[in-house]
Amino acid sequence: LRSKLPDLGITIFTRMTQLAQETGAINLSQGFPDFAPPAALLDAAMRHLRDGQNQYAPMTGIASLREQVAHKIARRYGRQLDSQREVTIVPGATEAIFCAIQAVVQPGDEVILLDPSYDSYAPSVHLAGGRCVHVPLQQPDFSIDWQRLQAAFSPRTRLLIINSPHNPSGALISRADLDQLAALLRGHDAWLLSDEVYEHLVYDGQLHASVLAHDALYQRAFVVSSFGKTYHVTGWKTGYVAAPPALTDELRKVHQYVNFCGVTPLQHALADFMAAHPEHLDELPHFYQAKRDLFCQLLQPSKLRCVPAPGTYFQLADYSAIRDDLDDVAMAEWLTREAGVAAIPISVFYREPPKDLRLVRFCFAKQDLTLQQAAERLCAL
Amino acid sequence: LRSKLPDLGITIFTRMTQLAQETGAINLSQGFPDFAPPAALLDAAMRHLRDGQNQYAPMTGIASLREQVAHKIARRYGRQLDSQREVTIVPGATEAIFCAIQAVVQPGDEVILLDPSYDSYAPSVHLAGGRCVHVPLQQPDFSIDWQRLQAAFSPRTRLLIINSPHNPSGALISRADLDQLAALLRGHDAWLLSDEVYEHLVYDGQLHASVLAHDALYQRAFVVSSFGKTYHVTGWKTGYVAAPPALTDELRKVHQYVNFCGVTPLQHALADFMAAHPEHLDELPHFYQAKRDLFCQLLQPSKLRCVPAPGTYFQLADYSAIRDDLDDVAMAEWLTREAGVAAIPISVFYREPPKDLRLVRFCFAKQDLTLQQAAERLCAL
Ligand SMILES: CSCCC(=O)C(=O)O
Ligand SMILES: CSCCC(=O)C(=O)O
Repeated sequence: LRSKLPDLGITIFTRMTQLAQETGAINLSQGFPDFAPPAALLDAAMRHLRDGQNQYAPMTGIASLREQVAHKIARRYGRQLDSQREVTIVPGATEAIFCAIQAVVQPGDEVILLDPSYDSYAPSVHLAGGRCVHVPLQQPDFSIDWQRLQAAFSPRTRLLIINSPHNPSGALISRADLDQLAALLRGHDAWLLSDEVYEHLVYDGQLHASVLAHDALYQRAFVVSSFGKTYHVTGWKTGYVAAPPALTDELRKVHQYVNFCGVTPLQHALADFMAAHPEHLDELPHFYQAKRDLFCQLLQPSKLRCVPAPGTYFQLADYSAIRDDLDDVAMAEWLTREAGVAAIPISVFYREPPKDLRLVRFCFAKQDLTLQQAAERLCAL
Repeated sequence: LRSKLPDLGITIFTRMTQLAQETGAINLSQGFPDFAPPAALLDAAMRHLRDGQNQYAPMTGIASLREQVAHKIARRYGRQLDSQREVTIVPGATEAIFCAIQAVVQPGDEVILLDPSYDSYAPSVHLAGGRCVHVPLQQPDFSIDWQRLQAAFSPRTRLLIINSPHNPSGALISRADLDQLAALLRGHDAWLLSDEVYEHLVYDGQLHASVLAHDALYQRAFVVSSFGKTYHVTGWKTGYVAAPPALTDELRKVHQYVNFCGVTPLQHALADFMAAHPEHLDELPHFYQAKRDLFCQLLQPSKLRCVPAPGTYFQLADYSAIRDDLDDVAMAEWLTREAGVAAIPISVFYREPPKDLRLVRFCFAKQDLTLQQAAERLCAL
């Protein structure tokens, strides 16, 4: 049995969540809320289960959810999408990313990743027969190194993957960055995959610069988002892809054989909730910014140093004042076992991690009480 | 944009369901029930939604559902599986098939398909860089042509895909067939993918010969099943793969980057229902056999001739006495438009359809009233 992914084991999220469970640690590793989704969303799901929405959804997703997505995109990013031809509902953003990569990457093609990059990108490229070209983001602010990015392009470059708000750093790509990207891509025959699953988790009064708001970039882009992150239901595994018709056609060809369709009753519930509760999206940044600020404030007395960042529900922390002798993988395990708080090391998102990286990632999508208990343990170190 | 699947459009299931909706035809094309799932299953799903099972499931599936699957397999097929290392819950059998193929097929490898074969197999092989070798099943009983199958093997053969009960024919592979397959595979370095999603839909007192009940075959097999087919919830997109640990490891490596995990509340509901209602599996064949028999009896006065078959919820019918001038693709469309009953042509499941194929497939997973109305229309032809 010759492995297709010989160098890979089980993902860091599975490993750290398992370790948290085994050790009884507070799990701030894998990104998911420990509080309930909106009651109206659960009510809608129960209603559609009971009322009989239990058979296959259309392969592209149910029409009402595609329409709600198009409405949202029009309201927030000013782009009018054809919900039939440019929006596809998929079983989670991970599958969206996989299918988009499969749709455009041919054997031998190159795909540029900005490290640290989400752990599914590289294996997905590999399974498509592509080759990853890794360009590290700059320290300490995780901004794009334009010279290195430009130098990474070759005639074989077929796809560039960007991610903003950025997991694990929380950094944002700006509108000026998008303009620069557009200028850079102009000379190349490459597509863009924009992972925007944290699009609604942006703080400090900043705005998310979506590729959907950028004409030149959208014309060559898959834009991926996640209902799980936005509506506190990561276990519902429902996301979407917005892309111009020609790209959508190719994405759907792959998606229909990878999975066929998403889960029907949950699509209906999300459509109902989006229609009835547009205010959820306005309240969400305040809700999460308060959690981020609380967590960082609680860590003030600790020896951890929070790295300021305006997006996602992740907080990076520098731990060098506690155990400078440990690399981040060892430190994440040490924190789980010794402090009882599980975290994610970030070197695993690099092909070549920077030397002396002393950062771990905490997820603050938790009840305030959970954050307080975790901070108490971390302050005791 | 160079297409990865240049010869493929939208699946036949999407096309025929859409045509049925546009024309108001009774939809006996795509395979799904038009009746409610068990009330206790829906209640369980509503309970787990309300009680907070809304975040990521473990990548391998929740433990209780893996254990229920292992219990079922022990009871029905006499094999004791390690539910941790040999059972993986996945978001639907289509994804199970895709991931199993991705896990073992390397670029240039050959995969043997027995035509007519389910429409996702060949594109999945293609996306893995493999080459399909198509071996037609024999007419009229869709049995294996052992000589042609043997001749199809080469040193490059990496995988054989079988499907029993067989979609679209309803034919079964027997225990003797499995022995013969085992003998054939013995000389080859090839894996087996056994698509058994209709395992519990077997009639006329026959028994499903599962690869799980066959020692030699199981050692090299992925066995795929579907909760959607068994529990009347095709829209829940939940299935499983049973495979020996080494194969399971490789499957999971792929699955974790293709989708990560299935939907949490529905996994809990299925686990509860399987534990509380083992009788469902015993009643299911009687329930569906009665529908098959009713449908065929209602078609007696028509010019359609039912092809006897003991499995699945599909019924093939020979239409040559009605429109011998039409091929089956044209006939499926004609039936939808002219008779108001949508069906599936079966030539689309062949690389080279037999000449003069005059068969279409009807799904009888419908309320008796639906079957009566459909039969009435078909008898009027
Ligand atoms: C799919 S599990 C990982 C969840 C996540 O996106 C993260 O923790 O970074
Ligand atoms: C995934 S839609 C097709 C359902 C099915 O398996 C069939 O109708 O054959």
